[in-house]
Amino acid sequence: MTASNDPRHEEARIRAQIDSWAAALRDKDVDRIVAHYAPDAVVADLAPPLWNTGVGTLRKNFAEWFPTWRGPIGFEVRDVHVTTGGDVAFARSTNRIHGTKTDEVQADLWVRATVCFRKLDGAWKVAHEHVSVPFYMDGSFRAAVDLKP
Amino acid sequence: MTASNDPRHEEARIRAQIDSWAAALRDKDVDRIVAHYAPDAVVADLAPPLWNTGVGTLRKNFAEWFPTWRGPIGFEVRDVHVTTGGDVAFARSTNRIHGTKTDEVQADLWVRATVCFRKLDGAWKVAHEHVSVPFYMDGSFRAAVDLKP
Repeated sequence: MTASNDPRHEEARIRAQIDSWAAALRDKDVDRIVAHYAPDAVVADLAPPLWNTGVGTLRKNFAEWFPTWRGPIGFEVRDVHVTTGGDVAFARSTNRIHGTKTDEVQADLWVRATVCFRKLDGAWKVAHEHVSVPFYMDGSFRAAVDLKP
Repeated sequence: MTASNDPRHEEARIRAQIDSWAAALRDKDVDRIVAHYAPDAVVADLAPPLWNTGVGTLRKNFAEWFPTWRGPIGFEVRDVHVTTGGDVAFARSTNRIHGTKTDEVQADLWVRATVCFRKLDGAWKVAHEHVSVPFYMDGSFRAAVDLKP
């Protein structure tokens, strides 16, 4: 087994990708964050629509979302669990997003994140991502933005 | 390349698993549906909490949820996209859940589904699943249960 297909090595590479992606998000750096995605990546995000398709759409979304925060975004990635196999991998984590929005609202929520990777030309890229909170089944249909891990 | 690692063959097996899982859900058959999960499967579901861990928890959740529907559950799995590699695979789809609840409420919603598989003893099992709707960013925090694909 060579370093190029050692599962421990591949898991370490995925974890480094997630760390780098999170740092780009904290820094609100659109170019650095979109570099992590495959051109045809499909993302289920916190906001509608159901799906966001293609890196051009993701770039537009990040470019619109980042300026809604005052200063850097607080972003913590916790309990990362990675599964790799050949050129496919998936990871899950619980992520905290917090900080001050430009309208002075203090935001602080925990979300579930699933990130699915494909190895393209030797580099792990995000092919599919799913980020969400559940919602309360008490008839209110309120998003559960107050849960903690 | 043998049938056991032909990506097209593995994709067909995953699609058959998804079809079988969906049929078990329509039939409200707890034993058949939990047979699709790995023992340590971790699921992000529509309802809180953030995560549901282990097939015992999933069994309890299905056993409690199925009787809240009058008759079979309407369940449609659309636009399935499968990526396989070795002993790891992931799939996404847009799923419609509809029918009559026991309190006579007519339910009908579309959700995003991500299902991540591991091959265990030659059989594909769900290791991780993430099902959600987004929520509206208009300050209402309402779950977007009215979106259509």
